[in-house]
Amino acid sequence: MEEDKLLPNKQIVLKKFVQGCPKESDFDLNITNMSTNIRDYGSNGVLLKNLYISCDPYLCHLMRPARLSSFLQGSFVPGSVVTGYGVAKVIKSGYEKLKEGDYVWGVTGWEDFSWNSNPEKLLTKIETTDVPLSYYAGILGISGIAAYVGWHEICAPKQGEIVYVSSAAGGVGHLVGQFAKMSGCYVVGSSSTNEKVDLLKTKLGFDDAFNYREGDLRSQLNKHFANGIDVYFENVGGDMLDEVLGNMKLNGRVAVCGMISQYNLTEPKGIRNLFSVIHKRLMLQGFSEQDYRSTAYAEYAKWAIEQLRENKLVYVEEVIPGLENAASAFVGIYHGHNIGKRFIAVARD
Amino acid sequence: MEEDKLLPNKQIVLKKFVQGCPKESDFDLNITNMSTNIRDYGSNGVLLKNLYISCDPYLCHLMRPARLSSFLQGSFVPGSVVTGYGVAKVIKSGYEKLKEGDYVWGVTGWEDFSWNSNPEKLLTKIETTDVPLSYYAGILGISGIAAYVGWHEICAPKQGEIVYVSSAAGGVGHLVGQFAKMSGCYVVGSSSTNEKVDLLKTKLGFDDAFNYREGDLRSQLNKHFANGIDVYFENVGGDMLDEVLGNMKLNGRVAVCGMISQYNLTEPKGIRNLFSVIHKRLMLQGFSEQDYRSTAYAEYAKWAIEQLRENKLVYVEEVIPGLENAASAFVGIYHGHNIGKRFIAVARD
Repeated sequence: MEEDKLLPNKQIVLKKFVQGCPKESDFDLNITNMSTNIRDYGSNGVLLKNLYISCDPYLCHLMRPARLSSFLQGSFVPGSVVTGYGVAKVIKSGYEKLKEGDYVWGVTGWEDFSWNSNPEKLLTKIETTDVPLSYYAGILGISGIAAYVGWHEICAPKQGEIVYVSSAAGGVGHLVGQFAKMSGCYVVGSSSTNEKVDLLKTKLGFDDAFNYREGDLRSQLNKHFANGIDVYFENVGGDMLDEVLGNMKLNGRVAVCGMISQYNLTEPKGIRNLFSVIHKRLMLQGFSEQDYRSTAYAEYAKWAIEQLRENKLVYVEEVIPGLENAASAFVGIYHGHNIGKRFIAVARD
Repeated sequence: MEEDKLLPNKQIVLKKFVQGCPKESDFDLNITNMSTNIRDYGSNGVLLKNLYISCDPYLCHLMRPARLSSFLQGSFVPGSVVTGYGVAKVIKSGYEKLKEGDYVWGVTGWEDFSWNSNPEKLLTKIETTDVPLSYYAGILGISGIAAYVGWHEICAPKQGEIVYVSSAAGGVGHLVGQFAKMSGCYVVGSSSTNEKVDLLKTKLGFDDAFNYREGDLRSQLNKHFANGIDVYFENVGGDMLDEVLGNMKLNGRVAVCGMISQYNLTEPKGIRNLFSVIHKRLMLQGFSEQDYRSTAYAEYAKWAIEQLRENKLVYVEEVIPGLENAASAFVGIYHGHNIGKRFIAVARD
C-alpha cells in the first residue's frame, strides 16, 4: 500500500456563472493539492483518479444561478470544480463495495483526482474491462443508456415506423439511429455538417440524412418525410421541434432527450405547433437516464458489449486529450463541433 | 308506417370560412325540405330526427380552409350544414342494427332532420333511456368519455396526487374534477367567473378553485400549488400551459384534451417552458375520445349511469332551446359563457 501523500491536482473550475452560451473564459484551470489520506475526507467515500470525462450538453444548466434539483449532481457555484459523468480508477476506498484498483463510471470531478463521498449513489462499478474504458464515458455510460431507454421505453417503436433523429451524429443520436434500424424502422437523421451527414449514411446505417443548415427546415422535413414521422427522437428543440410537430403522424411519439439549441438562449424559442399534440394524439415524454441506472443499465450494458464485440454496433467517439483542453472541448459541443461522443482523456490509467 | 313525405328542415349552415373567433354572422339559418323516403339517399343509412346537439370547442377547426383529417367527421365547406355530436331518434332505417324509434348519439347535423349514411361509424345506439336523453350529448357522450379516458388512461393518477384542471366548470372539466376526487386526489380548478368558481367549490367537490382572470396567473398557480402539480388536465393552452409547465412536479403528466384559448388566434402563442419536459421528465399526451368509443365507452356509460343514479356524480348541463339560437350559443363557448355542458335542444322527442 502506497504511503499517504499530497498529489498535485489540476482542476477545471467554474469562474463565474455562465451567461448565454458557455465560453472558455467562464472556466479556470487551477492546480491544488489532493491528499491521498482518506481519513482527511470522512468515511464511506472513495478517492478516484479520473481517466475520462464526458462533455455533456446538460452541464450548462448547472452553471447558471437558477438551481435545478432534478439532476443527480448539484448545480455549481463560481469557484467550484465542474463535475460530470466520467470514468475513474479507485485509488483509495472507505466504501465496502469498491476496492483499490476497481474502475467506476458515474459522477466525478473535472480534475485529476476526486474525492467521492457518495459512491453508492453516484458511481457504478465497471465489471467488464476488456472493452476500452472510455466507452463507459459514452456508449456504456449515460449516452448509451439514454439512447437505449429513450428508444425502447419512450419511443415504443413498431417495425416499419418512420423515425427521425435530430443531432443524429451526436453521442446519443448516432446510437439511437442504429437501435432504430435494429428495430426494423426507417431512420432519417439530421446534422450540422456534410461530413457528419456522410457518416450517418455510410457508416452508421441511417436510411437517409440531411444537413439542417442547408436550406429551409420545413422543406427539408417535407421532402424527407412525405408521409410524416411516427417517432421523433428530440435532441435539439426550438424551431426544429416546432417544425417536426407539424410533420408528425397520428399517434406519434416524441422522446424528449435534449434541446441543445435552446440551452443558451436568454429566452427559449416559443413552440407554436402544440395543437398537433391534440389533433394527432401525440405523446411527448421527457426522460433521464438517471432513472434507469438501477433497473435497465446492467442488462443494457451486457447487450451493448455483445453487439460491440460482434461488430453489430458502431460507436463513434472523439477523444480530446488533457484537462487543459477541457473548456474548449466542452464549449465546442454547443456549436456542433463534436462528431459522436466527445470526451476528455485526463489520464489513460 | 308513415307515408313518405317532404319535411321542412331548418339547418345551421356555415356561410363562410371562419376567421379568428367564430361569429354569429359566420352562420346562416336556412330552411330546406327533407324527404322521408330513404330510397332517395341510398342504402344502409338512417334518417334521423335530431333532438340535442352539443356545442363543442373543437368544431371551429373544421370551419377553416385547412383540412384536418384526424376528426371523425370531415371539415366543412361554406354552404354546408354544420355537423357535430348530438342525440337523435331514428325515423327511417336502412341499417340492420337500428330500427325506427331507436335513439342514437354520435355525429349528426345541426338541423331538424339528418340523413346519416354511415351509422356504423358515426352513431352509437342508446341502450339506456331512463336517464335524460340530453345526457348523451354530454356526460354519456363525448364529454364524459373524454373526461373518463383522459383521467384514467392518460393521467394515470395515484392516490394523494395534486391535480389541476383548467376550464374546470366546462363540459369535460367539471367531470374530470369529480373523477379525480374519486381517485383520492387533491383537485384545484380554474374558471373565468366567480360564479363558476363557487360552483366548483360548493357543488362539484373541488378542494379549491380560482378565477384565472383575477390577478397574475403565475402568482395564482404558485399560491394554489406551493408544492407543484402532479397531473394537469389541459383544456386551455397558451399562457396557461406555459405557466403550468413551470409548476409541474417531477414525473408529472399533462393530459392534453383542449387548448381553447388558442383556437381562434391567427398565430398560436409560443410555449417557452418546454425544457421542463426534460428536466422534470414530464409526459404530455394528446388524445381523442374517438379512439375509445369501441373499447371503453360501454363500460364507462354503465358506470356513469350508476354513479348518476346514486347521486355520486353531479352533472351540470345548460340547455339552449332552438336551432335559431344555435349560432350564438356556439359562439359563446369561446368567451366562457357556458356553465357545464352547453347543448342545443332541437326537439324534445
